[in-house]
Amino acid sequence: MKKLIALLAILPLLANAQTKDSVMIKRLSDEILRNGKAYDLLYQLTKQVGGRLAGSPQFAKAVQWGKITLEQQGADKVYLQECMLPHWVRGGKDQASITELDHKKTNRVLDVLALGNSLGTNGKTITAEVLMVASFDELEKRKAEVKGKIVYYNFGFNPTNIEPFVSYGQVGTYRVTGPSRAAKYGAVAVMVRSLTESTANDPHTGAMAYVDSLPKIPAVAVGPRDADYLWGLKAGYKVSLRTNGQLLPDTIGHNVIGELKGTDLADQIITIGGHLDSWDVNEGAHDDGAGVVHTIEVMRAMKAIGYQPRHTIRFVLFANEENGLRGGLKYAEQAKLNHEKHVFALESDEGGFTPRGFGFSMNTKAQLLQVQSWLPLLKPYGIDKLIDGGGGADIGPLKQTFGTPLAGLIPDAQRYFDFHHARSDVFENVHKRELLLGAVNMAGLIYLIDQYGL
Amino acid sequence: MKKLIALLAILPLLANAQTKDSVMIKRLSDEILRNGKAYDLLYQLTKQVGGRLAGSPQFAKAVQWGKITLEQQGADKVYLQECMLPHWVRGGKDQASITELDHKKTNRVLDVLALGNSLGTNGKTITAEVLMVASFDELEKRKAEVKGKIVYYNFGFNPTNIEPFVSYGQVGTYRVTGPSRAAKYGAVAVMVRSLTESTANDPHTGAMAYVDSLPKIPAVAVGPRDADYLWGLKAGYKVSLRTNGQLLPDTIGHNVIGELKGTDLADQIITIGGHLDSWDVNEGAHDDGAGVVHTIEVMRAMKAIGYQPRHTIRFVLFANEENGLRGGLKYAEQAKLNHEKHVFALESDEGGFTPRGFGFSMNTKAQLLQVQSWLPLLKPYGIDKLIDGGGGADIGPLKQTFGTPLAGLIPDAQRYFDFHHARSDVFENVHKRELLLGAVNMAGLIYLIDQYGL
Repeated sequence: MKKLIALLAILPLLANAQTKDSVMIKRLSDEILRNGKAYDLLYQLTKQVGGRLAGSPQFAKAVQWGKITLEQQGADKVYLQECMLPHWVRGGKDQASITELDHKKTNRVLDVLALGNSLGTNGKTITAEVLMVASFDELEKRKAEVKGKIVYYNFGFNPTNIEPFVSYGQVGTYRVTGPSRAAKYGAVAVMVRSLTESTANDPHTGAMAYVDSLPKIPAVAVGPRDADYLWGLKAGYKVSLRTNGQLLPDTIGHNVIGELKGTDLADQIITIGGHLDSWDVNEGAHDDGAGVVHTIEVMRAMKAIGYQPRHTIRFVLFANEENGLRGGLKYAEQAKLNHEKHVFALESDEGGFTPRGFGFSMNTKAQLLQVQSWLPLLKPYGIDKLIDGGGGADIGPLKQTFGTPLAGLIPDAQRYFDFHHARSDVFENVHKRELLLGAVNMAGLIYLIDQYGL
Repeated sequence: MKKLIALLAILPLLANAQTKDSVMIKRLSDEILRNGKAYDLLYQLTKQVGGRLAGSPQFAKAVQWGKITLEQQGADKVYLQECMLPHWVRGGKDQASITELDHKKTNRVLDVLALGNSLGTNGKTITAEVLMVASFDELEKRKAEVKGKIVYYNFGFNPTNIEPFVSYGQVGTYRVTGPSRAAKYGAVAVMVRSLTESTANDPHTGAMAYVDSLPKIPAVAVGPRDADYLWGLKAGYKVSLRTNGQLLPDTIGHNVIGELKGTDLADQIITIGGHLDSWDVNEGAHDDGAGVVHTIEVMRAMKAIGYQPRHTIRFVLFANEENGLRGGLKYAEQAKLNHEKHVFALESDEGGFTPRGFGFSMNTKAQLLQVQSWLPLLKPYGIDKLIDGGGGADIGPLKQTFGTPLAGLIPDAQRYFDFHHARSDVFENVHKRELLLGAVNMAGLIYLIDQYGL
């Protein structure tokens, strides 16, 4: 009964808080939906900077763009945080074609893209018989046949999965570890089916990682329609392959950091970010231009409505997610050296589609229940789920270093893998309102975290 | 305590039912996501039949396509239900241009589409000064200025609304009633801003309705970018307009109906449908090709997994939603004449985007709570809300006639009004997985209704 009375006593306070919060979130939402700059900033980043692989001249241009943009949009302070970046270059056009064994006339030119970090064919075209396998299990069973061949992995997305990220999680290992697993048995190169369910033929690149003790053989992703064609052939074909990838010495790059200075909790830091780097073959519009402009938009909107945060809020454009995670690692390392206090971090790196929820990696059930209690405040803006599990690659090191609770924006993902790491990840495939709504909900969540902590 | 014991006694039964249901829904989902025909059928309907305004030869072709397709996909019975259709024809290219008063040189050709049901300019080009108003309120205030002019209504979507259908509901009246409201004060024609937030210039047509006692003046929708341009000019301009709309005598058309025969409840009917007609200027891909192929896909999947429904399920392609609702009215009228028992109806007419929920118009709170108790069964397929309020235009007459409980599929709507009634509503703007997921959830809901009734 005492508890009940206590509860009844604070109910009006809770109701007032909810009203104040819903008014603030509505102000942020109206500001973003009326005057949002995210879409125009994305146009600049995709069309005027373009593809921006870590280590490239375009990436350096993106850093300058990020710094100027954070300044123009009203950050209290903007600075660059130096870090070393991997420096992989594609080096030229990736080429592949398929021919019947014992014939000279090409049956089909294949649309391929060398995988990130993979080494090229040394200025030559290599030609070898293709061994097609459906899985690592089949590779193991047929390992005696591998020597001297080009291995093609056909493992694709499972269409019965509802969430495409589940499918990606199931097959990603073919791209990442497939080359070395085939090299172990003497393969001379590897081809993988692109990680997508798209109905187009665009190949999808992405990072792979060699096992250092094994030969570093060339590796490409094959466009989905060409992959269907290949798989239909079964056996009796050779592929000619020419790629030009090189791994140059590490180079200097930067995280770009904007700050809104906190008030009563200025020594406690909330981080919100996306990654500035992209693959070289596209404009990095969804991956992760969307996360970059989401981040900047949240800051712009807070300034525009005159919101003064309690915590110091860091708006971070991370330097290198795609092939090394060096930006996120550096950010956490430097935070540790500076004895900073990181209370929460949020990343947007699943595209600029209609937001549906946030996923959280919390330290306690109580923290999860607390953020879940805010669902009624975010539901009017299209958020239907605040679930256990989530974050982002770039903010992961904060959790490892400080135990910082993390969250990741969950947009609708049905179209994501049509564009992910493919040439089609361009500005035209991002929808203005879908993009802005992501920023609306990120602003709302950050506001609540800033007000109430965890 | 008795209640508790009774509840405990049936708990295992409930758990078994949930397991059986989740297995069945998973089977339907897998069947649709693996072998679904909806996307290919949509290709046929949009590319081989094309735009299909009620009363047009293309609509007659669509009826034949619908009949053959329902038969091929395994309906127990397929028949056509005759109904009279309105017969509006656009009659030629709609033209408009704007010129400064007292000048002859055209400043800009405007992209316009005559509104459905509107009458043309009688083979002439009419030229008159434009009076631009922001709202009906402003029209009323300036009614003395209207005579002899072309009235332009600039009322647009409110960007701060999260749900685009809310915006559409707020401004739709300008398109429907705007022409007669201006004619009342002597306007010679009306132009309305297209009902969209799209960043393209495609104009969006749609039905208007004349007040019979007032002059029937021409009326067009203006492309959004041209609307911005117009509105920026404020005053001092004349518009030249030529449209060719004609309302011909009513003509004969058909609803297309497929049935799966019920078993123990065969005399009770569940209806699921979309509308076969579309506007003439596009392929009617989202509106409502998606609803048509959703409907057929649910039937196909039930047959494919060998599901035998308890109720008789009717799969209805309604003849005329866009400019008359004659299909839905006829369907309910005939059902009444036949003394049919209609226990539930579901429509898909909000596009082929990722499904997010269903909206229900029930007769009792208990019915709503019952369907809401199924949320855990549909959540794995992306449904996050089962809300009060919803249905569909074509099934509305069933509710009026029999009190039949209704539901409507709620897809993500952020992109819907980019395409709605515009030339851009084409096959290429529908995403295969998003489309199929709509059918998955419709199949799941119909299965549950069929098993448990309401």
